[in-house]
Amino acid sequence: MNKLCVLIASMLMANFAVNAQEAIMPEASRIVSPKLSPTGEATFNLYAPGAREVLLVGNVTRHETAVDSAGNMQKVPFVKMAGNNGLWTATLSSLEPDLYTYKFVVDGVETNDPNNVFMVRDVKSVSNMVLVPGDGSREYMVSDVPHGTVSDVWYTTSFDNAQRRMRVYTPAGYEMSGKSYPVLYLLHGMGGDEYAWSELGRAVQILDNLIASGRAEPMVVVMPNGNMARHATPGADGLGFEQPEFNLPHTMDGVFETHFPEIVEYVDGHFRTKRDKDSRAIAGLSMGGMHSLYTSAIYPDLFGYVGLFSAAVRPHAAEVADIYKDRKGSVGSQFAKGVKQYYIAIGEDDFLYEENKDFRAELDSLGLPYVYKESKFGHEWTNWRRYLVDFLPRLFK
Amino acid sequence: MNKLCVLIASMLMANFAVNAQEAIMPEASRIVSPKLSPTGEATFNLYAPGAREVLLVGNVTRHETAVDSAGNMQKVPFVKMAGNNGLWTATLSSLEPDLYTYKFVVDGVETNDPNNVFMVRDVKSVSNMVLVPGDGSREYMVSDVPHGTVSDVWYTTSFDNAQRRMRVYTPAGYEMSGKSYPVLYLLHGMGGDEYAWSELGRAVQILDNLIASGRAEPMVVVMPNGNMARHATPGADGLGFEQPEFNLPHTMDGVFETHFPEIVEYVDGHFRTKRDKDSRAIAGLSMGGMHSLYTSAIYPDLFGYVGLFSAAVRPHAAEVADIYKDRKGSVGSQFAKGVKQYYIAIGEDDFLYEENKDFRAELDSLGLPYVYKESKFGHEWTNWRRYLVDFLPRLFK
Repeated sequence: MNKLCVLIASMLMANFAVNAQEAIMPEASRIVSPKLSPTGEATFNLYAPGAREVLLVGNVTRHETAVDSAGNMQKVPFVKMAGNNGLWTATLSSLEPDLYTYKFVVDGVETNDPNNVFMVRDVKSVSNMVLVPGDGSREYMVSDVPHGTVSDVWYTTSFDNAQRRMRVYTPAGYEMSGKSYPVLYLLHGMGGDEYAWSELGRAVQILDNLIASGRAEPMVVVMPNGNMARHATPGADGLGFEQPEFNLPHTMDGVFETHFPEIVEYVDGHFRTKRDKDSRAIAGLSMGGMHSLYTSAIYPDLFGYVGLFSAAVRPHAAEVADIYKDRKGSVGSQFAKGVKQYYIAIGEDDFLYEENKDFRAELDSLGLPYVYKESKFGHEWTNWRRYLVDFLPRLFK
Repeated sequence: MNKLCVLIASMLMANFAVNAQEAIMPEASRIVSPKLSPTGEATFNLYAPGAREVLLVGNVTRHETAVDSAGNMQKVPFVKMAGNNGLWTATLSSLEPDLYTYKFVVDGVETNDPNNVFMVRDVKSVSNMVLVPGDGSREYMVSDVPHGTVSDVWYTTSFDNAQRRMRVYTPAGYEMSGKSYPVLYLLHGMGGDEYAWSELGRAVQILDNLIASGRAEPMVVVMPNGNMARHATPGADGLGFEQPEFNLPHTMDGVFETHFPEIVEYVDGHFRTKRDKDSRAIAGLSMGGMHSLYTSAIYPDLFGYVGLFSAAVRPHAAEVADIYKDRKGSVGSQFAKGVKQYYIAIGEDDFLYEENKDFRAELDSLGLPYVYKESKFGHEWTNWRRYLVDFLPRLFK
């Protein structure tokens, strides 16, 4: 049966884009990359007989190499295998359990690893992913626990009268329970979209695992798209297959925050939600942290919990929208109306570290209480996933 | 504001995987690939100063080049631009409106186009996508029409007592209408998964567009995973980031078909569905066509509509499962119980053409009526998307 299946498979593949490696060297199809050892070594392999230089880039090299003066990760060179068989290899030792991203650079051309189908887009660039299993990444794995449902739904905003897409996680059992659930609004960073938290953030797996083990309350999690200039992730809105841009209008001009109640209204109208302030949380990373800060501040009756993950806490645009102008006053009023928990987390190498320090000093000067977590590393998903794992158990208790 | 945003953007990107092209040549970040002209020309561009040969492969070359003796697409060579600036370019003329896939081969190494973030996995391989707009691809675009919801839901099968994932499309207005809807079960091919129809098949856009224009009835569409050895698309099941295999067990051994009523039961239990036979359809491509044929035959009271798109109509395994043994008899009994429409479509170059011809002769010999559509091309998504557009308006009228 095996042989016949292979035959069918070959036939089915015949008219599909020819796999160049297979055409040149059948053995190439058996290349495994990356190959993980039980001790955390990761070996990357590439068949590239004509190449003169192959480099490995991405945060997977974090433990191996220093960051250069521009803040970029160093490149790890591959070595050409002996025997002139066209194989190149690079081995990283002692990778801590985590989800990493990487790319190859072959003779100066950035490429993806052709032997690893796991790729993810972040902003304007697609990288390969590798998950190193272990304690630090256990919550990112799909476990044999009841799984929640994830839905792509569209709501209409009065901003441009357009439909906008968001992802909504409902916990396992939601469909049949008849119960109402608290809601976390979980926001992405600049250049991200409604898929960022579920894909790079592994939020769905984290939620399934934490809820199943009783560490987090069953909750609805809403992941909207915070770039008002796009209606959905690239390829899923009316712009067709136009390449994504980083520098979009209406990302940090107050429009998203001002229109946020429309999202809450849609969610409360279409899902079984608890609608009191202490059953609502808002959290986000980077730009999404800024959105969380100001949305919760200008609507102080909406959210009992606020999470700022590596947040851009002060306006970065030259023309500052009204809602950003009196942070001290609006956050002060927000606390006066009651906040169950205000959570701030940032990495020691984050370029937003100083402005977060200033913000904490401001809260301190007002005597406003918050939880503060400082971690290793900079402005990256390693931290945001860990912050989410730390933040979820604090909600709705 | 623009300048400041760029500054923030740069900072936000700083610790992310360095973009090798940008490091070498800032202008590379402005490369557009592919670039489409209004007349259907597509120009592919790559910055590759060290390369000796760059080739374009994929069905995007379909109109340019012949298929070689092995059935593979020919490769279209890039030319190195004058001026020694490291740029390579290849232009295809007169691309018919369609959704195409492609890759590059640089000095023998298969790569993706680093300037096009639109990628899609098909079986074991990731390709770039390009959508050429026009009449033939209009239904694949996101239009300004009411959008349905797409959900990833998990049901439990008695086969291995595991949770299995499927995608479920509910039409615009489903949440608030209170109405019940007919259901189409839409099945993928060997090596595909529950994401195949929504990603490569653009089924969500096709449904939104056809329903909005009144050409198709509002319906629920269920896209299960037909590879019983996997519980979800790679990366979303318990196997973690294990690379997908083509040759899986339990794809065509009757297990999927036999357990199909569990899917119907879950859907009818969790969605507002019409539950009579004439409000249920089943259709699939390739292996999914085989699944549709035999599932509808062994459960003749379940489906009023059957669609076989480039179907593998006869068993291809050495050990033939019982349900495949008497096709003539079981399909005969199915028709005796009533079929609203039996739809068969295949391309003239499809390697399954002959066995479909034999199957049609068998139906003819029994005097059983069916609709038959023959198209250009072979065993590929261009056809399956078109068959779906042709099939949907036939349902539930």
